[in-house]
Amino acid sequence: MIGDNREVLNHREPSWSLATDLYQLTMAQGYWASAMAERDSIFHMFYRTPPFGGRYVVAAGIEVFADWLSRHRFSEQDCAYLATVTGANERPLFTDEFLRYLAGWTFRGSIEAVAEGTLVFPHEPMVRVRAPLFDAQLIETTLLAIVNYQSLVATKASRIRLAAGRDEVLEFGLRRAHGLNGGLSASRAAYIGGIDATSNVLAGQQYGIPVRGTHAHSWIMAFADELTAFHAYCQVFPHNSVLLVDTYDSLDGVRHAIDAGRRLRERGEDLLGIRLDSGDLVYLAGQARKLLDDAGFQKTRIVASGDLDEQLIVSLKGQGAPIDIWGVGTKLATAFDEPALGGVYKLAAVTDKDGILGERMKLSDQASKASIPGCLDVVRLHDGSRCVGDIIFDSASEEEPGRDGTAQTIISPVDPRQHWTVPTADVSRTQLLQPLFVDGRRVAKESLLSDLRQRTLNGLTDFDRTILRFDNPHTYAAGLSARLHARRERMRENELAKIHRHKTNGYDGRRQSGERQR
Amino acid sequence: MIGDNREVLNHREPSWSLATDLYQLTMAQGYWASAMAERDSIFHMFYRTPPFGGRYVVAAGIEVFADWLSRHRFSEQDCAYLATVTGANERPLFTDEFLRYLAGWTFRGSIEAVAEGTLVFPHEPMVRVRAPLFDAQLIETTLLAIVNYQSLVATKASRIRLAAGRDEVLEFGLRRAHGLNGGLSASRAAYIGGIDATSNVLAGQQYGIPVRGTHAHSWIMAFADELTAFHAYCQVFPHNSVLLVDTYDSLDGVRHAIDAGRRLRERGEDLLGIRLDSGDLVYLAGQARKLLDDAGFQKTRIVASGDLDEQLIVSLKGQGAPIDIWGVGTKLATAFDEPALGGVYKLAAVTDKDGILGERMKLSDQASKASIPGCLDVVRLHDGSRCVGDIIFDSASEEEPGRDGTAQTIISPVDPRQHWTVPTADVSRTQLLQPLFVDGRRVAKESLLSDLRQRTLNGLTDFDRTILRFDNPHTYAAGLSARLHARRERMRENELAKIHRHKTNGYDGRRQSGERQR
Repeated sequence: MIGDNREVLNHREPSWSLATDLYQLTMAQGYWASAMAERDSIFHMFYRTPPFGGRYVVAAGIEVFADWLSRHRFSEQDCAYLATVTGANERPLFTDEFLRYLAGWTFRGSIEAVAEGTLVFPHEPMVRVRAPLFDAQLIETTLLAIVNYQSLVATKASRIRLAAGRDEVLEFGLRRAHGLNGGLSASRAAYIGGIDATSNVLAGQQYGIPVRGTHAHSWIMAFADELTAFHAYCQVFPHNSVLLVDTYDSLDGVRHAIDAGRRLRERGEDLLGIRLDSGDLVYLAGQARKLLDDAGFQKTRIVASGDLDEQLIVSLKGQGAPIDIWGVGTKLATAFDEPALGGVYKLAAVTDKDGILGERMKLSDQASKASIPGCLDVVRLHDGSRCVGDIIFDSASEEEPGRDGTAQTIISPVDPRQHWTVPTADVSRTQLLQPLFVDGRRVAKESLLSDLRQRTLNGLTDFDRTILRFDNPHTYAAGLSARLHARRERMRENELAKIHRHKTNGYDGRRQSGERQR
Repeated sequence: MIGDNREVLNHREPSWSLATDLYQLTMAQGYWASAMAERDSIFHMFYRTPPFGGRYVVAAGIEVFADWLSRHRFSEQDCAYLATVTGANERPLFTDEFLRYLAGWTFRGSIEAVAEGTLVFPHEPMVRVRAPLFDAQLIETTLLAIVNYQSLVATKASRIRLAAGRDEVLEFGLRRAHGLNGGLSASRAAYIGGIDATSNVLAGQQYGIPVRGTHAHSWIMAFADELTAFHAYCQVFPHNSVLLVDTYDSLDGVRHAIDAGRRLRERGEDLLGIRLDSGDLVYLAGQARKLLDDAGFQKTRIVASGDLDEQLIVSLKGQGAPIDIWGVGTKLATAFDEPALGGVYKLAAVTDKDGILGERMKLSDQASKASIPGCLDVVRLHDGSRCVGDIIFDSASEEEPGRDGTAQTIISPVDPRQHWTVPTADVSRTQLLQPLFVDGRRVAKESLLSDLRQRTLNGLTDFDRTILRFDNPHTYAAGLSARLHARRERMRENELAKIHRHKTNGYDGRRQSGERQR
């Protein structure tokens, strides 16, 4: 059996509709067979813990998910494969009727989401899906796979942007990214997060991201010596002359680059830059700058690369390294120090058989991990100079808090002992969730990637710098409205009381089962 | 400009030929314009440091790379995009003549590679490319992107396999993987590394990997209560009954699962398993086992999931947790504790203008990072019970070492003070590098994925367990033949002497440039 399907991948790209967990499909059949498929449901995607020791996440990947969803159909070939999937005893999992239904299905729900490039805080809904249970369930894995990863990389990129200040930053991570598509997603997300350009040509072609690159060590090694290699490169690319100097000895390389630069000047061109890729970058950049300046190449820029991340950039800048351009690869494209964002997708409400919407809450041994029931929205308050607070509220049961200008209490979703009071008079208000799909139809126009990037850059100035700090960042007033907090606490107590009743009544599963059968 | 090309991605998959770093294409034009494109060259892909504190890497991804390379062409659309790429002053980087050449080009070289599932040690060539410089350069980034990531995940999977012993292990990582293709690659590599099945349906369809899954917390929350949800699930899937018990309270959930199991037995089926996804897995698995056994469900298996990796599995097994099946996700699919393998691709030899092959070596401030020149092969020696040594040698200049049965000295590629002497009489010998492409044509048959997986499992028994150990693993005798070591040291000294001469002679770039112009 194994390997029978290889041909499909070799000869054309798969449909990607099966890029999901099997349990989404078993649940879909389950809902369908239990007459639950059409129950109206609300799910939220959110994260609990910000990555990299920070306070925020930069949302990304949402439009890529929307592209996927717009084309999401189960092909004949997909259904033919599903017909072969078995459970225990080699019996097929899926019925023919269900697969016929699945083949005709397309997504029918409505989705609100934050715009890519928005800074979001823990427990805030990034995506809200209101759809038949069947539809909402089937999109979970793909939504999480795309948005978790791209948001992670955009967040990392925003930190690198903060570290680099106004310096140019290039993304070089493809060779260590998680596959070709992982690399393409990384380039897109890194650009949204504030990086200036990428080495990934496909990202240039697909997304219009500026691409950069000159030569590798192998170019130098292919020639008889470094000087010959530099001259040859500048001969072919007089207007793309950033020379990698560390193949044999970095400062010797700088001297050779200066020589190549002199010849470029004879042609009316100039040496654009040198690149350092190993060694002590503070020492080498300082020495290289001196060599370049002494030789009259004050405008030649110094590019540094080699396992850089935001912490190292801060350190190098703090030590005064005269580096103009930063090349970041592995640490960005793999989000090396925390390579997964734990975004989750939780059911918050579902209708019963009479069509009444009932709220739902997942409990947990840790109270902080309990989900937030309801139909949630987030309003962000901005006092004209900075964002002052985000209020998560249940838009089905309460007005947008503070519309009347009264000060509002915001309560931490994790620890109710932490709360803030924010003024709501004289603030501008932004609803973070905006329509993406309405009744199965995509409504949001596709964005220019440069606009998404600009949103991130704006966000980085909209929040107090102490909140964006790398070490022990200050908290930001993001949490629940007082009404939502009270509803959630009541619901938690009710759910816990139910469990407690089971236990103290000497619960016997058989009896309860009997009761339900009556 | 940004966003102009979005349409391409929306309406069809890109060709993936541009999934490379821009500098590969600038170098290609450079070689072409400098009459260097046809120079015969040898490159090796290898890694320097094993991940996860271990001693080895499980090679994977090579056949996926071969699939890519077989179809690798620059389309008209690709070349049209490249014509728009600019350097400084907005001048185009690529010439029309070069792009016409590129559009007609296909890979012409020969490639030897280790079989997927082979355990490889630091500095051993995993892939050897012998091709015109132009061709060898153009494939670098894609080779590294695919093989680095898949080898990383296969290695992680092999460690999880070692930890789990004979227990079943499932891979659940798609929602945290680096994009959809990252998730597909992860499932493939995890299977090669020894995992038993995946939740990723696309991986099932594309590669024939067994798929598994039942239901999520949302299934439970969609019903009025947990017991109703379990009964409904078992009604639809009586032969796929693994019930997730921790939505509200894990042990309460086990009691409900037992109730559902009793109803399954009334139908002649049985409760296959319960899944624990949070809480203290030692305590909960112990209590769950007792509840199940007391209720007569001794055969019902306990599945555990939730941020598991090899270290946690060892710990849980060590504490006697009666867990039968392990679900691993994030920690495997992202290789969480070390999410990048630093595999590199280095030029080892190139012909000069007279067609004479000259060896090349990249030096470095760290002697251990210097590359190995020549045309390398690796022979693995097996004494009938265990592998006893790997010898890297230059097959262009020496016979396979130890063919005559004399004991061989193997010298560490990193520190020559470390060396081993291995007997070569009465051993079986395996050449690790095998032909993959000959003169641009793929020659290796595609493998069954189950055979690649079996190779890994065999490898895990072919090496002494102390070498595979997680903490402070024992060293394995993998290194250079005495002759190759001597050649490399001579070459290093020559190169260093060249640099030294430049410096002590008061090197002046201008003068040398003048000399070269004469």
